Amino acid sequence: MKNRKLLNSELNRLSPQEFKVADKLHITLVLDNVRSAHNTGSAFRTSDAFCIEKILLCGISSTPPSAEIHKTALGSEDSMDWEYFEKTEDAIAILHKKHYRTIAVEQTENSIILDDFIPDRNLKYALVFGNEVKGVQQNIVDMCCDCIEIPQFGTKHSLNVSVSIGIVLWHFMSSR
Amino acid sequence: MKNRKLLNSELNRLSPQEFKVADKLHITLVLDNVRSAHNTGSAFRTSDAFCIEKILLCGISSTPPSAEIHKTALGSEDSMDWEYFEKTEDAIAILHKKHYRTIAVEQTENSIILDDFIPDRNLKYALVFGNEVKGVQQNIVDMCCDCIEIPQFGTKHSLNVSVSIGIVLWHFMSSR
Repeated sequence: MKNRKLLNSELNRLSPQEFKVADKLHITLVLDNVRSAHNTGSAFRTSDAFCIEKILLCGISSTPPSAEIHKTALGSEDSMDWEYFEKTEDAIAILHKKHYRTIAVEQTENSIILDDFIPDRNLKYALVFGNEVKGVQQNIVDMCCDCIEIPQFGTKHSLNVSVSIGIVLWHFMSSR
Repeated sequence: MKNRKLLNSELNRLSPQEFKVADKLHITLVLDNVRSAHNTGSAFRTSDAFCIEKILLCGISSTPPSAEIHKTALGSEDSMDWEYFEKTEDAIAILHKKHYRTIAVEQTENSIILDDFIPDRNLKYALVFGNEVKGVQQNIVDMCCDCIEIPQFGTKHSLNVSVSIGIVLWHFMSSR
């Protein structure tokens, strides 16, 4: 059998204790008023898989402990470091003080197409994702250093936010 | 304002009629017994965004029309071409007859890490994604030409299937 499926025990994943002290990608995720706790849970699961450092949950975004987050996070809400901010502006301001390059994922007049965005290994990034309907707020977009856009060619205006987070984190991970 | 958010009307998306006749990426998605209609709906939405040709829904995977699929597909279940197969084996056999290169997305003994997989522009690909708990069935993995694996470094064994579909489709799209 050329491609025997691996057992979960063969995947050599980290324990939550090992994860806490593991080397992380210098990427912080910012959720700007994400409505669905399922999407927030999925953000935790994807962030855990790609070993990024932190998630900032802002505005109406749900926070752990939450049965709804757990349904899609499957425990990664315990391994991942997170913090809550009532105002997304405050999260962005603190990130700027800590010298993060803040990037809103949004379709704007001058957004950079994801293919063309080459992450700099020497920078720390904060990636900002917005509400399922409204996207990232314009005042938050205005505060961010750059905007990137996932190119899309079909009939719908946008991708699901969980899927967008997966694609953008993958791009940053695989480009480094 | 450097990064004014674009209005939906400025995104120049295709109408469902335009989508039907648009040039597509020669990629077909195969869902092998995906349980959640939300995940199937998300697969439709992502497939529409990246303008791939078709989705094959197999086994227990839900089919349109479905209120649950619609919640996440948001109408892309009408624009995207799809077909149902009771047995995933039959879908794979037909794809092979049509000279598709079939690729299971699964963690196996000899799976190729996604970063290392460079799609060939001259080939047609079928990408097979499995059940939320069991993954792609071993007998389907055995039928496929290759396996690819999304590398993961955290505590959880796998990514959500909707997120995996987004990442792998993005990889194929951006590599071409």
